[in-house]
Amino acid sequence: MTCKFYLHKGKGKKAENGHPWIYTDEIQGYDGEYTNGDIVEIYNFKEDFIGKGYINDVSKIALRIMTRDREENIDREFFLKRFKAAFDYRKKVIDTSSCRFIFGEADFLPGLTIDKFEDYYVVQIASLGMDMYRDIIVDILKKDFNAKGIFERSDLNSRELEGLEQKKGFLTDPFPTMVQIVENGVKYYVDIENGQKTGFFLDQKENRKAIHRICKDAEVLDCFTHTGSFALNAGIAGAKSVLGIDVSQHAVDFATKNSELNDLSEIVKFECHNAFDVLPKWAKEGRSFDVVILDPPAFTKSRETVNGAKRGYKEINLRGLKMVRPGGYLVTCSCSHFMKEDLLKTTLQEAAKDARRTLRQVEFRTQSADHPILWNSDESYYLKFFVFQVV
Amino acid sequence: MTCKFYLHKGKGKKAENGHPWIYTDEIQGYDGEYTNGDIVEIYNFKEDFIGKGYINDVSKIALRIMTRDREENIDREFFLKRFKAAFDYRKKVIDTSSCRFIFGEADFLPGLTIDKFEDYYVVQIASLGMDMYRDIIVDILKKDFNAKGIFERSDLNSRELEGLEQKKGFLTDPFPTMVQIVENGVKYYVDIENGQKTGFFLDQKENRKAIHRICKDAEVLDCFTHTGSFALNAGIAGAKSVLGIDVSQHAVDFATKNSELNDLSEIVKFECHNAFDVLPKWAKEGRSFDVVILDPPAFTKSRETVNGAKRGYKEINLRGLKMVRPGGYLVTCSCSHFMKEDLLKTTLQEAAKDARRTLRQVEFRTQSADHPILWNSDESYYLKFFVFQVV
Repeated sequence: MTCKFYLHKGKGKKAENGHPWIYTDEIQGYDGEYTNGDIVEIYNFKEDFIGKGYINDVSKIALRIMTRDREENIDREFFLKRFKAAFDYRKKVIDTSSCRFIFGEADFLPGLTIDKFEDYYVVQIASLGMDMYRDIIVDILKKDFNAKGIFERSDLNSRELEGLEQKKGFLTDPFPTMVQIVENGVKYYVDIENGQKTGFFLDQKENRKAIHRICKDAEVLDCFTHTGSFALNAGIAGAKSVLGIDVSQHAVDFATKNSELNDLSEIVKFECHNAFDVLPKWAKEGRSFDVVILDPPAFTKSRETVNGAKRGYKEINLRGLKMVRPGGYLVTCSCSHFMKEDLLKTTLQEAAKDARRTLRQVEFRTQSADHPILWNSDESYYLKFFVFQVV
Repeated sequence: MTCKFYLHKGKGKKAENGHPWIYTDEIQGYDGEYTNGDIVEIYNFKEDFIGKGYINDVSKIALRIMTRDREENIDREFFLKRFKAAFDYRKKVIDTSSCRFIFGEADFLPGLTIDKFEDYYVVQIASLGMDMYRDIIVDILKKDFNAKGIFERSDLNSRELEGLEQKKGFLTDPFPTMVQIVENGVKYYVDIENGQKTGFFLDQKENRKAIHRICKDAEVLDCFTHTGSFALNAGIAGAKSVLGIDVSQHAVDFATKNSELNDLSEIVKFECHNAFDVLPKWAKEGRSFDVVILDPPAFTKSRETVNGAKRGYKEINLRGLKMVRPGGYLVTCSCSHFMKEDLLKTTLQEAAKDARRTLRQVEFRTQSADHPILWNSDESYYLKFFVFQVV
């Protein structure tokens, strides 16, 4: 008999409205027996069925809903249906040669992330419940999606909250883990074994494309360049010169390789600098650029550190703005879910005021379409991306 | 001697921070003589120079700032510099064959709108101060931008707030006012004499392009189709069938002509219906579509009528959502400045809840880049555009 969980009166409203998470303190009790990782049934206090999901009482998020259909079993067929729907959607909205293949909650598969790099797949499992389905996931990717190779990158600190160890390694026969992909006409090496997260940030695909027009014939500075993606898009769009900077020498070396791969070494160069240090210095020296790009890492990963993050975003945008020639462009973004759109706007406005510059918004975008935002699960919205003309 | 205006202590902060408007009640007094329409100097209570602008004491917006540079005179040279900067920007960010050429405050020319349709220009002047420069504007468009013809569409109710009469007619020798343009590969007739506003809504250019992928092979319903622009973009993108509806028979006839112009008559058809009436009826009959597009007129043009507008947006989105097949797409927007982004989001969320549908946001966009959003002048932000997958 499937174990049944009942929620407190007045609790679980978000879950009833479509959010996949239920917190420990929303649960009133349960009827039956369970082992962590089991699929259980979830009911509100009136005993109305909400959905089926997996339980992990070690985690603050005790239940994650997998289906709202009582008849649906969580088996190979279930995963195949979800994977097919996810890929059909992506084929409709985006170039799928390389793309986010499964985006967790937003693809109704909480705890699971899969990135596709050409014929290779990188799997990331964040929760105990999803951990139970690794074999099914691998089997479907191989048989139904012709995966040439699958690599697991569950080297996530957050797995510890689930009582799980971090995990990393091949899920198929080993293969060369330096994969080559093409995005917006730019070629990249992707290090799926040792790169950040799954090896490449696919979520800026359309945003990188959005800078092409303003970068033509321009002198461009790309801060926090990482694998060089914005810099290389500027280069391929016909920039006069591009300087990408990153605090990590490893990133600089990697980006330089990507530049060579695209025959852009003469135009797109990389140097190892801390943007926070070097921007004020360069501003004093009178250096300036037609386009300045700021794609910093998430300065906050929780609600508690938002104020510090705000200071970071203000500082870097202030510094960036000062480097933009009159009539030039600032490209700036935040990939932190907790740095909400409104707070980010206020912060940018403050930076502009302090820099005595006027912002004209050319474009606002969010994360790419292969990272859809599930409105019932606001955690799925995280990337804010602006292009400004700076007057 | 140029008349000098002084603001009250604590007033005019927005103006000091870059907003171009100063309201009557922000003015403490003035020194000198003026006639409405004159360029005057503006100072804060500490007698710090803020800018130069034109005065009209008949209007609630008594002063509109034209420059923050004390040395800059408001003459032909000034307008030519502004026009060149505006067009250089547009050449950088967008296809300029037809585009918004001047976007008022956001191009630092308060009260002036100019749309370019191929070599023809439509001028709209909203304020008395700007009315003084009609001859200079026309002269520059002819001599410096090779305008083949210029038509004025200052048939604006808001001119009455400025003590001005509405005005409409040729500013050059007469020319045929049915102009043909191309946007995203779609051809349109534009009726610059009798069409709405300047004849065509250029502000959705990139948004119309954004529906191409989801409309391929789809059955599409386009509500409030007006000149048929979203419907024709769906058609040219390879839709299986497109039905555009509009409450105006004139609009339906015009859109049908545009369909013929593109050889799309077999695919893209138009019918005269009130969307509010016909959507519930069709839903009852079990009709459904792969893509439903809602581009309603502004349901509110003031703060006072926002609540009524919210009801309108909720109703039409609820009705639209019910017509979308599972896994299909809803394209929805609001062109009202007063229907703020957050309020619109809440309204769409409520509509989805009532329709028992789940929204996955594919893309969010604002108005096109040739209608830049001046952050110091929040009135310049008005168009919100969403693409959702509806599950």
